[in-house]
Amino acid sequence: MKKIRMGMIGGGIGAFIGDAHRRASRICNDYELVGGVFDVDYEKSKLFAQNESISSDRCYVSVEALIKAESALPADKRMEVVSIVTPNALHFSFAKSLLGAGFNVVCEKPMTMTVKEAEELEKLVAEKKLTFALTHTYTGYPMIRQMKDLIAKGTLGTIQRIDAQYYQGWINSIIHGTGTRITGVWRLDPKHAGASSCMGDIGVHAFNLIEYTTGLEVKEVLSDLNPVKEGIELDLDGTVLLRFSKNLKGVIRASQVCGGEENNLTIAVYGSKASLKWAQEDPNFLYLLSDNEPTKIFKPAHGYNDQFAEASHTMPSGHPEGIYEALANIYKGAAKSIRGIEFTPGEFPTVHDGVRGMKFIHSVVDSNKAGNTWVKV
Amino acid sequence: MKKIRMGMIGGGIGAFIGDAHRRASRICNDYELVGGVFDVDYEKSKLFAQNESISSDRCYVSVEALIKAESALPADKRMEVVSIVTPNALHFSFAKSLLGAGFNVVCEKPMTMTVKEAEELEKLVAEKKLTFALTHTYTGYPMIRQMKDLIAKGTLGTIQRIDAQYYQGWINSIIHGTGTRITGVWRLDPKHAGASSCMGDIGVHAFNLIEYTTGLEVKEVLSDLNPVKEGIELDLDGTVLLRFSKNLKGVIRASQVCGGEENNLTIAVYGSKASLKWAQEDPNFLYLLSDNEPTKIFKPAHGYNDQFAEASHTMPSGHPEGIYEALANIYKGAAKSIRGIEFTPGEFPTVHDGVRGMKFIHSVVDSNKAGNTWVKV
Amino acid sequence: MKKIRMGMIGGGIGAFIGDAHRRASRICNDYELVGGVFDVDYEKSKLFAQNESISSDRCYVSVEALIKAESALPADKRMEVVSIVTPNALHFSFAKSLLGAGFNVVCEKPMTMTVKEAEELEKLVAEKKLTFALTHTYTGYPMIRQMKDLIAKGTLGTIQRIDAQYYQGWINSIIHGTGTRITGVWRLDPKHAGASSCMGDIGVHAFNLIEYTTGLEVKEVLSDLNPVKEGIELDLDGTVLLRFSKNLKGVIRASQVCGGEENNLTIAVYGSKASLKWAQEDPNFLYLLSDNEPTKIFKPAHGYNDQFAEASHTMPSGHPEGIYEALANIYKGAAKSIRGIEFTPGEFPTVHDGVRGMKFIHSVVDSNKAGNTWVKV
Amino acid sequence: MKKIRMGMIGGGIGAFIGDAHRRASRICNDYELVGGVFDVDYEKSKLFAQNESISSDRCYVSVEALIKAESALPADKRMEVVSIVTPNALHFSFAKSLLGAGFNVVCEKPMTMTVKEAEELEKLVAEKKLTFALTHTYTGYPMIRQMKDLIAKGTLGTIQRIDAQYYQGWINSIIHGTGTRITGVWRLDPKHAGASSCMGDIGVHAFNLIEYTTGLEVKEVLSDLNPVKEGIELDLDGTVLLRFSKNLKGVIRASQVCGGEENNLTIAVYGSKASLKWAQEDPNFLYLLSDNEPTKIFKPAHGYNDQFAEASHTMPSGHPEGIYEALANIYKGAAKSIRGIEFTPGEFPTVHDGVRGMKFIHSVVDSNKAGNTWVKV
Repeated sequence: MKKIRMGMIGGGIGAFIGDAHRRASRICNDYELVGGVFDVDYEKSKLFAQNESISSDRCYVSVEALIKAESALPADKRMEVVSIVTPNALHFSFAKSLLGAGFNVVCEKPMTMTVKEAEELEKLVAEKKLTFALTHTYTGYPMIRQMKDLIAKGTLGTIQRIDAQYYQGWINSIIHGTGTRITGVWRLDPKHAGASSCMGDIGVHAFNLIEYTTGLEVKEVLSDLNPVKEGIELDLDGTVLLRFSKNLKGVIRASQVCGGEENNLTIAVYGSKASLKWAQEDPNFLYLLSDNEPTKIFKPAHGYNDQFAEASHTMPSGHPEGIYEALANIYKGAAKSIRGIEFTPGEFPTVHDGVRGMKFIHSVVDSNKAGNTWVKV
Repeated sequence: MKKIRMGMIGGGIGAFIGDAHRRASRICNDYELVGGVFDVDYEKSKLFAQNESISSDRCYVSVEALIKAESALPADKRMEVVSIVTPNALHFSFAKSLLGAGFNVVCEKPMTMTVKEAEELEKLVAEKKLTFALTHTYTGYPMIRQMKDLIAKGTLGTIQRIDAQYYQGWINSIIHGTGTRITGVWRLDPKHAGASSCMGDIGVHAFNLIEYTTGLEVKEVLSDLNPVKEGIELDLDGTVLLRFSKNLKGVIRASQVCGGEENNLTIAVYGSKASLKWAQEDPNFLYLLSDNEPTKIFKPAHGYNDQFAEASHTMPSGHPEGIYEALANIYKGAAKSIRGIEFTPGEFPTVHDGVRGMKFIHSVVDSNKAGNTWVKV
Repeated sequence: MKKIRMGMIGGGIGAFIGDAHRRASRICNDYELVGGVFDVDYEKSKLFAQNESISSDRCYVSVEALIKAESALPADKRMEVVSIVTPNALHFSFAKSLLGAGFNVVCEKPMTMTVKEAEELEKLVAEKKLTFALTHTYTGYPMIRQMKDLIAKGTLGTIQRIDAQYYQGWINSIIHGTGTRITGVWRLDPKHAGASSCMGDIGVHAFNLIEYTTGLEVKEVLSDLNPVKEGIELDLDGTVLLRFSKNLKGVIRASQVCGGEENNLTIAVYGSKASLKWAQEDPNFLYLLSDNEPTKIFKPAHGYNDQFAEASHTMPSGHPEGIYEALANIYKGAAKSIRGIEFTPGEFPTVHDGVRGMKFIHSVVDSNKAGNTWVKV
Repeated sequence: MKKIRMGMIGGGIGAFIGDAHRRASRICNDYELVGGVFDVDYEKSKLFAQNESISSDRCYVSVEALIKAESALPADKRMEVVSIVTPNALHFSFAKSLLGAGFNVVCEKPMTMTVKEAEELEKLVAEKKLTFALTHTYTGYPMIRQMKDLIAKGTLGTIQRIDAQYYQGWINSIIHGTGTRITGVWRLDPKHAGASSCMGDIGVHAFNLIEYTTGLEVKEVLSDLNPVKEGIELDLDGTVLLRFSKNLKGVIRASQVCGGEENNLTIAVYGSKASLKWAQEDPNFLYLLSDNEPTKIFKPAHGYNDQFAEASHTMPSGHPEGIYEALANIYKGAAKSIRGIEFTPGEFPTVHDGVRGMKFIHSVVDSNKAGNTWVKV
C-alpha cells in the first residue's frame, strides 16, 4: 500500500516527542515523512531534514510557507497529514491553519489552551470532514482496548465507582533543586503551560482513559489542587472528585511530586458484577475481578480477547509490546481514517476527546479557584 | 512469666472477631482467658465457656455481674483486662463501666458511636491510669512499624502527599441480592451501624494508618459519600480530601462495593526525598521509592530494619506472618503496658486513636451532609 | 472440647522451632502443653517450664524419665502426644521410644537420619495404630491444599512437567565469613547434619510438596550437588532431575547460597489441559494457567475453593494468614487423628511422608556420589 | 545520516518474523529496505515488494540472482546488508553465499544446523571482516544489558549458581489436537527442525543469555530431554545441568508443553555478594538481591544505570518499551558496525554466539542420547 505523505511541525533535533511520533509512524509503516517545519530556527530545521534524508525543498520556514507550497503541489505529491508536536501554546493556531487548508492533522495533547479554541477546532474538523487524531497515547494499548470492549459488553454490570491515578515524581528534583531553576521550567510558568501543570499535563490522561474505557461522561468535578511549595503558581498535585450520575462517583488523583514514581498511571472501574484494573507500567496485564470467581489476568495475543484488542498487538503472547506500539496503533487508526478505510471507533482519539480534555482541565481549575466547589464539565 | 488474666465481652460461639482476639492472645502467649460474658443468651454463653474449658463460675450473665464478682476476688485472681468484642453500639457503655471499675480494656473498633463518648473514655483512661488498647489491627504489621520508623527518621524529607485506600467488595452481593436483604443487614442500618457504613468501618482504618505512620494530624476533611443504590441510607463508598497543612494534602478512598476487591488497604506517603508504599494483602513488602536510586523492597527479619519492626516478627525472613500475628503484636504491646513493662509508643493503638477515629468519621459525615465542604476534624 | 495433653522434647529457651510448634498448637487451640524435656540441661529445662507455668513435676530430666512417669499416670492425666523438636540426629531414637510406649508423636523433619530408621518408624506406627505427624509445614497452606485438590480433580489433564525450587541465601554469610566459622556450623558437618545439607534440609521440602500436591511418586533421580567452596564437605546447592514415568519428568532445584533469597520455595505443575504455580513467599495466591483462558488467581476464603482448602483458613478473604497458621493446620489435623475424629487425607504429613523424604535424600546423595547417574528412590 | 541499504531473504506476505525484523529496522531508523528474495514463490515475492513500494527490479528470483545483480551495482547503490529470515535449514547456505560475496548479514537464529557449518561461517566472517549479527533478540533489552554491566563490574562477587528457564506452552495445543497434526508441524519433524525442538528453539536463548550476561562459558552439559508424547521424535521439554568450573554449576530448564506459559524466559545469577534476577515478560524490571540490604529494582531511564543500558532505551522512565525495541537495539548495533562507528561489545550477538549456540544444542542432544552423561560443549 502506498505510504501516506506526512509533514511534521516541530520535532527537530533533540525533540523527544517528535522522535516518538516518527518512530510510531514508522512502526505502523503507513507513513512517509516528506517535509515539515522542524524547528523555529530554520538552519536547525534544515540540518534535521538533511539528517533524515528529507528533501530540503520541503523543509519550510513556517507553517504558512508549508501550507502555501504544499497546497500548490498536485494531489498525489501533496502532504496528506501533518503532525503537530510543537510546544502546547502553538497547537491551536497551527491545527486551525492546517485544517483550514485541507490537511489532515495528528496533534499532540493538550490540543489547545482554551475550551473555546478546542470547540472551534471541533467545528472545523466537522465542516472539513478531515481526520484529526489527538495522541492520547495510552488509548493505543491493547489491554486498554480490551477493557473498553469488556465494559461495552456489559461484563461489569452497573458501574459503581471509578478511580484513576497518575503519579509522577520528576518535578521534585526541580522544585527542590536550586531556587533559580523554578522559574526556568516552562511547565511551571502559567504563560507557557496554561492554566494547569499537573492536571493539564497528566490528570487529563487519567480523565481521557476513564471516558475512553467506560464510554461515560464526567458531568461535574470538585478539585483540590496543590502547588506544593511557596512560589509555585500552578498545581503540581491534586485530587478531583468526579460525578457521572446520581449514584456513580469517582476520583482522579494526579501528582508530579510523588518522588520515585515514574509514570504510574492506573485505572480501576468497579461494577455491580465485576471490576477491571490496569496499570500503565505493566500494560500487558488486565485484571478482571469478581466476587465469586478467581481474578482473571487478560493478556494480549489470545483468542479470548476482542478483535480490536487483538488487532492492536502483533507479537505472539508473552512478547511484550510497549508505549511505541501503543502510539503506532493510534497512527495506524488515523491512517485508516485518512485512507477512508473502515476503522473501529476508538482506534484513535478525536478532536472531541480534545474538547472534553480542555473542559476537564478548565473545570478542575475553576473548581479549585472557587474554593473546592462542584463545577460542571 | 505469669499469664495476664483476661475476660471477654462478646465473642461467643460463631463470633468471628472474638475468635480472632483469642487466637491473638494465645499467639503472643501473655494471656489466659478466665471468664466473660460471651453471649447475650446466657445458655449459649455457658456452652461456649464449657467448650473452652472456662470455669462456669466466671461465665457471667452480664457485664455488671462480671464487674461485681471479679471486683470481689482477691487481686491475684481477679481479671486484669477485659476484651470487648461486642456489636459496636455496646462498646462505649461496657468500656466505661469496666474502666470505671478499674479493669484494663482491649476494645474492638469503632471505639464508640460519638465523639463525646470517645472523649469521655479518653478522660477516664487518663484518670484511672489504666491500659486501653484499641485493635486497629493493621498497626501491628512489622512493615507498617518499619514505615513509621523510616518516616520518623526523616527518610522521606518533607511529606508532600498522602494517599490511602481501603477497597472491599463484600457489600455488593448484599445490595444486589434480594431487596429484602438490604434492611436485614445491620451495617446498612443507621440505628445499629452509626453515622456511617463505609467510612466508619474501613475508611477509619485508612485514616488511622495515615496518622500512625506519619505522626501527622489530619486537620480538615472534605468528603463525597455515596450510598450507591436507591433505598440505602448510609455511605457504602466515598472519597475524602485531607488537609494536613497549607501545602500538604491527601486523600482517602474507601468503598465496600468494589466488586472482587477483598481487603485492599494501601497507604502511600510521598516526600521530597523519598516515598513509601505498602499494601495490606502483601503485608511483608514495603517499598521505598526515590528519584535517584532503585526502588528498595524492605521485608521483615532483616538487620536493616528498625528494632521495633524486627521485634514484631518472629520467623526468619521469607516465612510470611500475617494478620493474626499483627493482632498478636497489639496484644503483646498491651500486655507490656498492663504489666508495667517499658514499651514502644505505637505498640498498641490507644484511646486517643479512638478519639481521633471518631472525629474523623463524624467530620466526614458532616462534610458530606453540608454539601461537600471543608470540616475541621 | 478438652485440650489434648501435649509434651515436648527440646524447644527450650531460645529454641526457635520449639516456639513455632507451641504457637501453632495454641493457634489451633487443641492442645495444652503439660510437660516435657525442654533442654539437655535440666536446670535450663526447669527454668523454661517455670516461665511457661508448667508444673515442675512434669519437667523431666530425660525422655526415658518422661516415658516412665507419664506412663504411670492415669489415662486422663497422661500426655497424649509428644512433639519432638530436638536436633535432627535425635529424632529417631526419641520417636521410637515414645511410639513404643504408646504416645502419639509430632516430629520435626527430617524424621530420621537413614531410610532404615524411617522404615522402622513406619512399621511401628502401623503396629501401634498411633498418630504420627511430620511437620512438613508448607502442606498446611490453604492454597497448597487447593492445588492438591485441583490436581486430584483432574483440572490439569495429564501432568507433563513438574518443577520445584527452594532457594535460600543464608549460608552465604557463613561460608564467606571467617574460615573458622565453617566447621563451627553444625549444618555443614556431616556428623550432625547427616548425608546432606541443602537437599536434606530444604530440597526435601520441595520433594514433599511435589508428591503431596500431585499424588505422584518420584521413581528415579539424577543429581548434581555442589559444595560451592573448598573445604565444605556437604552439598550447599544442587539440581535433581526427576522421573515419574516414561514421559513425565521434572526437576528440583535447591540452594542455600543464593544470596538475597529468603525462603523462595516454589512449585509448578504443568499439565496437558492447565497448569498450577505457587510460591511460598506469597502463599495466598495460587495461579491456574491455561492456553485458552486468562490466568486465574485463586485465593483463600472463597466459595470457589475446595472444602479442605477453605477449612484451612479462618479469616475472611484478603486477610493474609501465614506460616504459623500453616503449621497450626497440621497440628489441627493431628488433633483430629488423635481424637479419632474424621480427617481429610493430607491434613497432616505422615510417617510415610518421612520415609519418602529419607529415600529422596539418600538417593540424591547416592546419585551424586556415583557420578550423576540415575538412582531409584 | 544516510540509511543503510538492506535486503531481505524470506519474510514475505504473512511471515511474522520478517515483519518483526523490518519493524525493528524502521524503529532504529538506520536502514532502508531496498530489495530481496521475499518468498520462494516469485509471484508472491513481487506482490510483497509492490505492497512495500520496493522496486520490482530488486525483487529477485533467488539469492544467487540477488548476489549477482547487486554485486554489479555501483558501491553507493548496492545493498550493504542482507537479513536472512528464512526457515532454519536455509540460514547457512544463504549466509555463506552472501558473506562470500561481501555482504554484511543479519541472520535469525538458529544460525545453522550443525556446529561445523557454524564454525565455517565464523571463519568466513573473520576472513571477510564483515558484520554478522545474529538476532538473539533478548540481548537487546536494556535491563539485560544493565545485568551484563553489573556482573562485569563485580557487583555479584564470585558467581555461585546460575539458573535460566524458558517455558512456553504453545505446542500443547498441537500435540493434544488431532493426531494428524503432529506430523504436519515442521518443528516436530527432525528433517526440518534439526536435532532438537525445545532446546534448539528456546533452550538456546536461555543458554545465550547466560553467556551474554555473565561473560562465562558453559564447559559441560548433562541433559534429560522429553518428547512428552508417544510418536514425537524430538524433545519438547527438558532440563540441562551446566558446569562452568569446579564449583560453579547451573541449570537450564526449557519446555514447549508448559500449558498456559506464554514466553516465560527468566535468568537468575547468584553470587557471593549479591544476585540478579530478570524475567522477559516484565523486561523493564531487574532485581538485585543481597543478604544485608533491601532488594533493589533497577528500571530503564535512570542515572544509576550503566551507559550501555541507558542508550538502549529512549523513553523517559516508566514508559515501557518492549520486544520490538530490543530487536531494534540489535539492528542499531549492527548498523554501527556496518558503518564502522564504534560500538559497545554486546551491542549485537555475533557469529561467535551462533557457534556457541550450535555447540550447546548438539552437546545437549548428545548427552541425552548417551543416557544423560556429561558432554563437553
